[in-house]
Amino acid sequence: MAHITTSVEYGLHSLFWMIGSEATPLSIRELAELQVLSPTFLAKIFPKLEKAGIVRASEGVRGGYVLARSPEEITFLEVVDAIEGKKPLFDCQNIRSRCPLYGHKAPAWVMKGVCEVHAVMLGAEQAMRDALQNQSLADALRVFERRNPPPEFTAAVQKWMGDKIEARTRKPARRNLMPGSKRKSGRSS
Amino acid sequence: MAHITTSVEYGLHSLFWMIGSEATPLSIRELAELQVLSPTFLAKIFPKLEKAGIVRASEGVRGGYVLARSPEEITFLEVVDAIEGKKPLFDCQNIRSRCPLYGHKAPAWVMKGVCEVHAVMLGAEQAMRDALQNQSLADALRVFERRNPPPEFTAAVQKWMGDKIEARTRKPARRNLMPGSKRKSGRSS
Repeated sequence: MAHITTSVEYGLHSLFWMIGSEATPLSIRELAELQVLSPTFLAKIFPKLEKAGIVRASEGVRGGYVLARSPEEITFLEVVDAIEGKKPLFDCQNIRSRCPLYGHKAPAWVMKGVCEVHAVMLGAEQAMRDALQNQSLADALRVFERRNPPPEFTAAVQKWMGDKIEARTRKPARRNLMPGSKRKSGRSS
Repeated sequence: MAHITTSVEYGLHSLFWMIGSEATPLSIRELAELQVLSPTFLAKIFPKLEKAGIVRASEGVRGGYVLARSPEEITFLEVVDAIEGKKPLFDCQNIRSRCPLYGHKAPAWVMKGVCEVHAVMLGAEQAMRDALQNQSLADALRVFERRNPPPEFTAAVQKWMGDKIEARTRKPARRNLMPGSKRKSGRSS
């Protein structure tokens, strides 16, 4: 498994679809449908993005997720950390402490500060994190826009989203006709 | 498991012990003993380092491994790549190709060039690789030397290595007394 997993890929692509759709909050099911992904898988990612303050959930039939901040303010690093946790690139086992010539315990001069191998790995990790920190969703969107997506595609996406919200708004009315039925949150329906 | 695994840590620390020991090639067993590591584990790492031209094996009872190049010429990146293979930081699933609105196939404008998410990940990976490329074994050794290892420690290491070579040189003579015995390579004995 790669260090930055498919969960991050799914999360980032979902966030891209959400840019500019504040008026039409998308449910997990809709985001999954739009990308032909497993809704169960996405349902594990979004609570993490919400906890990190990257998305915001609204309840009710018109509810769903929206970006909690502007795309300029959401960095790739934040999304990676929110989904993966801060997992290290290298997990130092401190093997410098082991040598029969040290006797029963490694001397202080050996153990002082960070191990030389670990220090290089920490430098490499920081370089990777800086690169992810320097890129926002808005930066990636600008690159996407250089593809010149045809206006009919943008219109089709807006219509698709509008139709979904419309269908969601109608559904609960039918459900309420059944005695004992409960109104579901828009987040997962 | 971290992206850069314990195998790399074991490999790098072994290489450090080999700096300056061209006259006393160390066997897998000796390198393992010196660091209280599993010889079986190290025996999987060294053929990879040899294939990458980082270490060189010499046969015979005085044989073992030595660095194939000067420590200035061996970078951390080379060691990581030799042991891990060039595994990517992020394994793009190209989910940009999936959207029911594209019809049965994603249009050319969507698939042109590298995906925006993948491009950022490749940039982060390159930053990490550059940092590893910019550090050699000699650089890390210079940091180690700032610890001022006591001269008696350096002497003890040299004596330990000398004693091991000495013991190896004596052993086959005894083995040869047994009829049908075969002389083993120094590499694994």
